[in-house]
Amino acid sequence: MNDLWLKNADEAIQSWFKEIREFTVSSLNQIHDVSTKSSRTDLVTDVDKSNEQFFIKKIREFDSKAHILGEEGFGDDVTNLDGHVWIVDPIDGTMNFVKQHNHFAIMLALYIDGKEELGYILDVMNDKLYHNWDGKVYENDTEINPPEDIPLSEGLMGLSGPLLINNEKNMQAISKASEGARIYGSAGIQIIAVLKGELVGYISTLKPWDIAAGKVLCDTLGIKVSDIDGNIIDVVSSDIVLVATKIAQKDILNIVKYGSDCD
Amino acid sequence: MNDLWLKNADEAIQSWFKEIREFTVSSLNQIHDVSTKSSRTDLVTDVDKSNEQFFIKKIREFDSKAHILGEEGFGDDVTNLDGHVWIVDPIDGTMNFVKQHNHFAIMLALYIDGKEELGYILDVMNDKLYHNWDGKVYENDTEINPPEDIPLSEGLMGLSGPLLINNEKNMQAISKASEGARIYGSAGIQIIAVLKGELVGYISTLKPWDIAAGKVLCDTLGIKVSDIDGNIIDVVSSDIVLVATKIAQKDILNIVKYGSDCD
Repeated sequence: MNDLWLKNADEAIQSWFKEIREFTVSSLNQIHDVSTKSSRTDLVTDVDKSNEQFFIKKIREFDSKAHILGEEGFGDDVTNLDGHVWIVDPIDGTMNFVKQHNHFAIMLALYIDGKEELGYILDVMNDKLYHNWDGKVYENDTEINPPEDIPLSEGLMGLSGPLLINNEKNMQAISKASEGARIYGSAGIQIIAVLKGELVGYISTLKPWDIAAGKVLCDTLGIKVSDIDGNIIDVVSSDIVLVATKIAQKDILNIVKYGSDCD
Repeated sequence: MNDLWLKNADEAIQSWFKEIREFTVSSLNQIHDVSTKSSRTDLVTDVDKSNEQFFIKKIREFDSKAHILGEEGFGDDVTNLDGHVWIVDPIDGTMNFVKQHNHFAIMLALYIDGKEELGYILDVMNDKLYHNWDGKVYENDTEINPPEDIPLSEGLMGLSGPLLINNEKNMQAISKASEGARIYGSAGIQIIAVLKGELVGYISTLKPWDIAAGKVLCDTLGIKVSDIDGNIIDVVSSDIVLVATKIAQKDILNIVKYGSDCD
């Protein structure tokens, strides 16, 4: 894709995020139609739905070649990364959105023929948009330095509650080998923390829309993204995902495979 | 204590918080002398120490009758709440302070002859001071409404990593009975979330300085503070502490005692 088209895309997307943030914040005190999806704690609201429809309309106006993969299913049936693939998470951390009015994100990514082009994570309540351009990652207009490549033992580890409680993949040993577990309840908010070096890594069961934008930003900063066995993930069919600094990734994969001396 | 003295105390304390916040934020990129205390993850820095010494100097200038209980031990040997008892946490969430430069608090409480008079929790990086006056709790200058009294099943539950991993007091069943576990790594930050209704409750092993200010603010808003068996806590000798809405407290105490059908 040529740079001018991408630059125009970036400008358009940033303006959509401004608009959608305003709508989302103004809707906080009038969230209707909260309903459950796959489980008691997997929620969807009218705001998730209208945000996704907003993005889809804007994307189709901008890019006639768009294939759109959205969490709430208003997009296309996307099964691979051929062509222009737009991946949308209209509200990431819907439980936090409903219960906390805080700690949730809106995410969008553009992959073209498998290449990671653009990724956006908006920390809605802090009004901070994390995005990439030309090999760099920005928090609004300020460049973010890549986080220090520290081992698991020197960092805090972002986890999901169910994985930790059920001790899947030796998650409790991973937590104990770190400086401590943190659970924020939103993939976007946890990945932002990894980008900023506040967490050394993050593990959770993630869907394509939970990781697509984060993968673009992590790859840009040299943060490793893999499945829980260290393999490259297929963004359109992801499962348990591990995000970590290079050294911490090795530490974690070792514990997943062999357990830990700390137990 | 007469109201004028307390009003003067409140004004003085708020000015100390402004000063100490400025110092703490400016010290973020020059934290020296990080060392461990009771365990590998129990840290103290030169900032914890100098913040405590700052408070002690200010308190002694203001109140010649002060007995001061501080985390880092520069105060007095306080074993009960007789007289003027000032309780100081110079940095709450020191691990977050060191590793994240985010999600930590500074706390101070004043008890007079056992009566809860004044409590302060500063969310340092968000520059928000939570404090009480005349039966109300404020976020900076804005009054906070008491959180809705919802059951455990309708709220997110703040927990500590070690308690959850070791399943102490049926903590995993408590987590499963809630809408999900959250771990932020700072008692002050988690208690603020309960005050604002972002969490339905919080359980952790807490020292006097971790809970003294939070207890004042929780009691002011009708949020229950007890030990893990439902008994009134002794602020100067606390252990595992449960903070929750009235209804959620009952739900949690039931699970602590009898386990849960959800298991």
